[in-house]
Amino acid sequence: MAVRALWWDRSALAIIDQRSLPATYRVRRLRDVGAVAEAIRTLAVRGAPSIGVAAAYGMALAARSGRWTAARAAALLVATRPTAHDLAVGVGVVRSAWDSGDDPLGAAHTFRAAVVDECHRIGEAGAPLFRGSPRVLTHCNAGALATVEWGTALAPIRVARDRGAHPFVWVDETRPLLQGSRLTAWELGRERIRHAVIADNAAGHFMRRGEVDAVIVGADRIAANGDFANKIGTYEKAVVARENRIPFYVAAPWSTFDLATANGSTIPVEERGVDEVARWGRHATAPSGSPVRNPAFDVTPARFVTAFVTPGGLVPPRAVRRSVPTR
Amino acid sequence: MAVRALWWDRSALAIIDQRSLPATYRVRRLRDVGAVAEAIRTLAVRGAPSIGVAAAYGMALAARSGRWTAARAAALLVATRPTAHDLAVGVGVVRSAWDSGDDPLGAAHTFRAAVVDECHRIGEAGAPLFRGSPRVLTHCNAGALATVEWGTALAPIRVARDRGAHPFVWVDETRPLLQGSRLTAWELGRERIRHAVIADNAAGHFMRRGEVDAVIVGADRIAANGDFANKIGTYEKAVVARENRIPFYVAAPWSTFDLATANGSTIPVEERGVDEVARWGRHATAPSGSPVRNPAFDVTPARFVTAFVTPGGLVPPRAVRRSVPTR
Repeated sequence: MAVRALWWDRSALAIIDQRSLPATYRVRRLRDVGAVAEAIRTLAVRGAPSIGVAAAYGMALAARSGRWTAARAAALLVATRPTAHDLAVGVGVVRSAWDSGDDPLGAAHTFRAAVVDECHRIGEAGAPLFRGSPRVLTHCNAGALATVEWGTALAPIRVARDRGAHPFVWVDETRPLLQGSRLTAWELGRERIRHAVIADNAAGHFMRRGEVDAVIVGADRIAANGDFANKIGTYEKAVVARENRIPFYVAAPWSTFDLATANGSTIPVEERGVDEVARWGRHATAPSGSPVRNPAFDVTPARFVTAFVTPGGLVPPRAVRRSVPTR
Repeated sequence: MAVRALWWDRSALAIIDQRSLPATYRVRRLRDVGAVAEAIRTLAVRGAPSIGVAAAYGMALAARSGRWTAARAAALLVATRPTAHDLAVGVGVVRSAWDSGDDPLGAAHTFRAAVVDECHRIGEAGAPLFRGSPRVLTHCNAGALATVEWGTALAPIRVARDRGAHPFVWVDETRPLLQGSRLTAWELGRERIRHAVIADNAAGHFMRRGEVDAVIVGADRIAANGDFANKIGTYEKAVVARENRIPFYVAAPWSTFDLATANGSTIPVEERGVDEVARWGRHATAPSGSPVRNPAFDVTPARFVTAFVTPGGLVPPRAVRRSVPTR
């Protein structure tokens, strides 16, 4: 059964609360921009494209309320998380409509539709990479939950399966918040795509043993030179993939590309709270006196990327700058 | 305060139950070989050198009971875990004494003392690597808990600190069982050595940013050509360390070297139960229908090792065969 991360439901933004998956499927209805910002900040909705679309609807809710200026609503939303470029794009698209007297909700709907369409085209563009019975490793969740529908990294796998391939997906659990084992495995289970969950530490083991044919991940921001930020751990997988001559693909809609950022050195990397690492539920997973560092993203240099899988087809890193459409 | 993983206490083997750390410090007294085997199998005692010494005392307990043959007791103990070479060595040392009419308990005491002495010499040999204020990354727990006293990977850090250095340790949490965040951080905290716990996924991030000066790990089995098995994830750290030109050291007593194994391809890799990955306490961390793979170790090729830190000094991988003393 196909997954949708969020949708407009009468006068509210409906989202699947991703924090309670896989144990509980819970839909929340967000009725104002403050609730949307809180949902983004607390990861109830996460994944760069989904964050971008949620923020677009947050702007629309602010406009409808009559109690916000566009500038204040935009500032609130953009401050929630620093790394995902799609967030600024989603906010900017609706703000432009609002500022120019167009319908903000219509602009949000249009942006949502564009992201969904782009993800579907990513699936079409990437599906030929996964013919036969490929064993594909992915990190974090770049599925429908992260991208509204289809996914970025998972879209080519879905389309390949629909065309008759028999993909098998290695699902990195993706510490600290386990978006791989909690979310990607849940999506793949719903769609009956073969998979196995592994601790992140095991990815290299299976690569070295020849049990991984390709790696595909999403991205939170892609710089003009092809350096990209994605969930912490992505860099390690990319280095180990190249060591083992395994192709490494990065799938993203246009809203993830940030041509104003020349390279990865200036992409901001969010550091999140220590309890994400030091606790699991009520269990302490580290001594209370031990310091913790918790960067949520890392930056992978362009040289580790075989190709970006985009709505416009496969794009090698050196071609990023000339391939991204001007908005 | 220095840590001891296990000791002989009147007529029993006393161990720190490593499963309940860091929340609870609990000592268990094991009075027969069955209890020792169970403690090894369930990871109440773990770490290759500690397993070897615990198994040696298990043989001694079997001999004292009058209810076991040496062959049966050895078979029980060796079957508990397949990867650590020290287990077979510890069993073999006491079995030789038993078979030849010598005192099995005395042989176990001698073996314990040798392992402790070797770990101290590892510390002396490796301490010059960590002068000044080095930032050292380690994976899993190769401290006193894993090795009876001193540690293997942690011994040079301890000795360097005692000689006036100011080391800082990046502690990989080491999924799935978190022996890094639960055990290594606990040991370092007791000894007031500066450290920070990170998700395994973050190790590469800090390496790439130039915040890691060296990596040091323990080992469960080292083949004659220098390939070695260690906790799952070690291979990834080794590959990423080399990519970033960071020295990568492997510290081990002689009982970890297995010259009868030519290279890493024939080292057995234990796969453990799926619940270690799919559950944390009472929490499900993956959908109940999702398959899980859980290899507990990986094999790192010798070419990634800068040097082995041994009781006889630093040994480059190509010199392993001629450096290990014949027993």
